[in-house]
Amino acid sequence: MDFLSMTQDELKKVQAIYYQRYKAYRTSDYHFLLTRGKPCREQLDLSLDIMDVLNSDSDFIDGSGEDCRNYGIQDGLTDMRKIFGELLEVPYDSVIIGNNSSLSIMFDVISCAMTHGFSGMKPWGRQDSIKFLCPAPGYDRHFAITEYFDIEMIPVPMLETGPDMDIVERYVNNDKAVKGIWCVPKYSNPTGITYSDETVRRFANLKPAAKDFRIFWDNAYCVHDLTDETVPLLNLYEECRNAGTLSLPFMFASTSKITYAGSGVSALATWESNAADIRKHFATRTIGPDKLNQLRHIRFLKNREGVLKLMKKHREIIAPKFQTAISRLNAELSGTGVASWNNPKGGYFISVDVLPGCARRVVELCRKSGVTLNPAGSTYPYYEDPNDSNIRIAPTYPSIDEIDKSMEIFSVCTCLAAIEKLLR
Amino acid sequence: MDFLSMTQDELKKVQAIYYQRYKAYRTSDYHFLLTRGKPCREQLDLSLDIMDVLNSDSDFIDGSGEDCRNYGIQDGLTDMRKIFGELLEVPYDSVIIGNNSSLSIMFDVISCAMTHGFSGMKPWGRQDSIKFLCPAPGYDRHFAITEYFDIEMIPVPMLETGPDMDIVERYVNNDKAVKGIWCVPKYSNPTGITYSDETVRRFANLKPAAKDFRIFWDNAYCVHDLTDETVPLLNLYEECRNAGTLSLPFMFASTSKITYAGSGVSALATWESNAADIRKHFATRTIGPDKLNQLRHIRFLKNREGVLKLMKKHREIIAPKFQTAISRLNAELSGTGVASWNNPKGGYFISVDVLPGCARRVVELCRKSGVTLNPAGSTYPYYEDPNDSNIRIAPTYPSIDEIDKSMEIFSVCTCLAAIEKLLR
Repeated sequence: MDFLSMTQDELKKVQAIYYQRYKAYRTSDYHFLLTRGKPCREQLDLSLDIMDVLNSDSDFIDGSGEDCRNYGIQDGLTDMRKIFGELLEVPYDSVIIGNNSSLSIMFDVISCAMTHGFSGMKPWGRQDSIKFLCPAPGYDRHFAITEYFDIEMIPVPMLETGPDMDIVERYVNNDKAVKGIWCVPKYSNPTGITYSDETVRRFANLKPAAKDFRIFWDNAYCVHDLTDETVPLLNLYEECRNAGTLSLPFMFASTSKITYAGSGVSALATWESNAADIRKHFATRTIGPDKLNQLRHIRFLKNREGVLKLMKKHREIIAPKFQTAISRLNAELSGTGVASWNNPKGGYFISVDVLPGCARRVVELCRKSGVTLNPAGSTYPYYEDPNDSNIRIAPTYPSIDEIDKSMEIFSVCTCLAAIEKLLR
Repeated sequence: MDFLSMTQDELKKVQAIYYQRYKAYRTSDYHFLLTRGKPCREQLDLSLDIMDVLNSDSDFIDGSGEDCRNYGIQDGLTDMRKIFGELLEVPYDSVIIGNNSSLSIMFDVISCAMTHGFSGMKPWGRQDSIKFLCPAPGYDRHFAITEYFDIEMIPVPMLETGPDMDIVERYVNNDKAVKGIWCVPKYSNPTGITYSDETVRRFANLKPAAKDFRIFWDNAYCVHDLTDETVPLLNLYEECRNAGTLSLPFMFASTSKITYAGSGVSALATWESNAADIRKHFATRTIGPDKLNQLRHIRFLKNREGVLKLMKKHREIIAPKFQTAISRLNAELSGTGVASWNNPKGGYFISVDVLPGCARRVVELCRKSGVTLNPAGSTYPYYEDPNDSNIRIAPTYPSIDEIDKSMEIFSVCTCLAAIEKLLR
C-alpha cells in the first residue's frame, strides 16, 4: 500500500480507517515514554551484585594500598583505569576517571577550552568566532553543550560510513574557527551506524587549520552490541599514534549503560599536552572522584571480559525489544513509502525518517495518544531538522508489550501525518 | 624563656641545645603528614554502617518513588536536600545536590560566572578586570580556583570576628571589579574563628558596586564542633532575606568530613536568578548526580539529629588530637615569644604564627626531620604570606602519639628558625 501513488480519494478512504484506529488509542489512556536511552528495571537488576561487593566488613583498600573512603587519587583507581583502557583500547595511563556522568567530562573539557584553551593557545572564549561540526542526526545533549557555550554548530550529514568526511575535511582543514567535532563512532546515536575504517583513518589524518581543533570521540556504546557479532570499529588511538596526531582526540566512555545509569563510572582518555591541560583543570576542581564507587565497579566487573559477559545479559533483555519495534514498523509501514528506519546492530536507538515536513506532526499526534517522543528536531543542532523528518525511538525502557503498542500507535500517527500532507 | 629578650650569647647556647634535639629527629626516620584536613581511619570507620544500608535486597526507591539506580532527578533526592536544608538552615527547595566534592560545585559556579555571567550580565570572563576578596589566612584550594581563572585576589585580614568588614565594605561597595569573596564562616580554615553576628549582618547588607558580586559561603564545618558547645553562627540566609539581598550568597556544604572524605555528598544552596542560572549550567552538564550515594546517606544519616550524633563521635576521636597538639605547643613554645596559635572550638586546623620571616624555614626544617607541612604561604593568595609567618597544622589524620611527636619537632624547628633569625 504505497501512499505516495494513491489518488486523493483513495487517501481519504485510508485516512478514515487510520483515524478510527487513532481515536481508539486516544480513549485508551496510554502512557508510553520513548524519549531517552534509559535502561529498564530488568537491566538495572543485572548489576544487583554490585550492591554487595562492598559492605561494612570490606577492606576498602585498592590495589595500591589506598583507603578508598578517604581523599585523593586524582586520576582514579589504577584498576578502574585499566578496565576503561581495555574498553577504549588505549593505554590505561592515558585514562582519567570521572564520577557518574561522561557528559560532565565532555562539558568540562569544553569549559576548559573556553576559559583556558589547549596547548597554550588563546582560550576559545576569547577567539572571535568558534564552530563545531555536528554530524546529524546526532545526540541532543552533545548539541546542548555546544549551544550553551554559544559555539556555532554546523550540521554534517551522516552517511552509512559515518559523517561525510569530504565535508568534515573541507571544514577542519580550511577553517580556523572550527574547533571540534562531536562523534559517536560506534552504534551512533541515533542512526546506529559504526564509522568505517576509512572514516576513522581520515579522522586520524585530519590536518586542522586550527591548532586547537579536537575530536570529541564519545564511545558511549563501545560494548553495546545487539547481535552476536560486534561491529568492529577501527582504533582511533592507534591510527592517531601512527599519524602523529594524538593531540587530536578526546575519548569518552562510561558504565552508565553497563551497570547503573545514574551511578556508574565515567572516563576520559587523552594524550600529549591535552592531558596536562585537563589534569590541571580537574585538580583545581576537585580532590578526586568517588573511589568507593570505582572499587565497587572493579570488584564487580573485574575486566573487559567481565563487562562483555554482563553486556550479553543486557542484550538478551533489550534485543527482543528492538526486534519487536522493528517488526511492528515492518508490519505497519513497509511499502507505504512514508517512512524509513534502521535496524541497529548495537546502541540504544532506532532512527526513523518520516515523510519530510511530517516529524513535528507525528510527535504531536503521538503525544495526544499517550506516546511521548523527544521533540521533533532533537537530533539536529538548534532543534532544526531541515527536512522535519527524523525521529529517535528509544525502545529499552518500556516493556515489550508497551513497545509493540507504542510502535503501532507511532506507525498510525506516521501514516496519518503523511496522508494529511499528501492531501494538502 | 623569652627568646626575644636574650643576648646573642644566650641564644647561641639555646641554639646548641635545640640543635641536639633536632639532630636526633633527623636520624629517626619519622614520616608524619600534617598537610591536609584528612579524616583518620577511626573516623572513616564511624560510618561503616553506611556500607550496609543498601545491598542487593534493597528497593533503591526514594521517597518520590524513583528508582535511584536510573537516570534523572537533576536537583538530587528530596530527602537529601532536606538534610542539607537542615544543616545549612535554609529551605530545602533552595538546595541542589552535587557529587562527592563541594569544591567542584564552587569551581562550577565560578566557571559558570566566567563563561555565562549572573543575572543576564556580561560573563566575568569578558569583563576587563575581575577581583575576589580573599580573607587570609584562608583555604588554599579556594585561592587555587580563583587563581586558575586568573581572577585578581585581594587578601583581607582575618580578625577575631571574621574578615575585616571595613575593608570588605570599602572594596565591595565601591569597586565594580570586585565580584566575589571566599568565606568559611564557621570554624574558619585555618584560624578556627566563627564570624560574629555583626560580621554576618554586614555581609547581608553589602551594597555591591557590581550587580554580579556574590558571596561564596563555604560552610564546610557547619556541624564540626570540637567542644560540647557549638559556636553559634548567625544565619546568613535569614539576614539576606530580611535585607532583600538573597541574590548575594551561594552556600556550600558536604558530608566529606561527616561520612567519607572521598565518597560523600555535596550541596549548594542558592536563590533568585542565581538558581536558574546554575540549574541551566548543571542541566547542560549532567543528567543528574549519583542518587544511590544520596540514598545511602539518607538512610544512614536520616536527618540533622542523625548527623549531630555522628559528629559527636568524630569529636571524641579528634578533639584529643587537637588537645595533644595544643598541649605540646603550650609546653614547648609558651613564653618563648616566637609563636602564637589558636585553640579552635571546631573545624580541622590549628593556625600557628611563627616569628615573621620564619615560616618557610620552619617548614623546611620540619621536612628534613620527617614532618610534612603545607608549603609556607599556602594560606595566602598566590602563596604570598606578607609576613612569612602563618603555618596551618592539620592534626586529624595522624595518631595521638604521632601528633605529639610531630608537634614537638615542629616546636623545636620553630625555635631553631627563630634563633637563626635573631642571631642574624
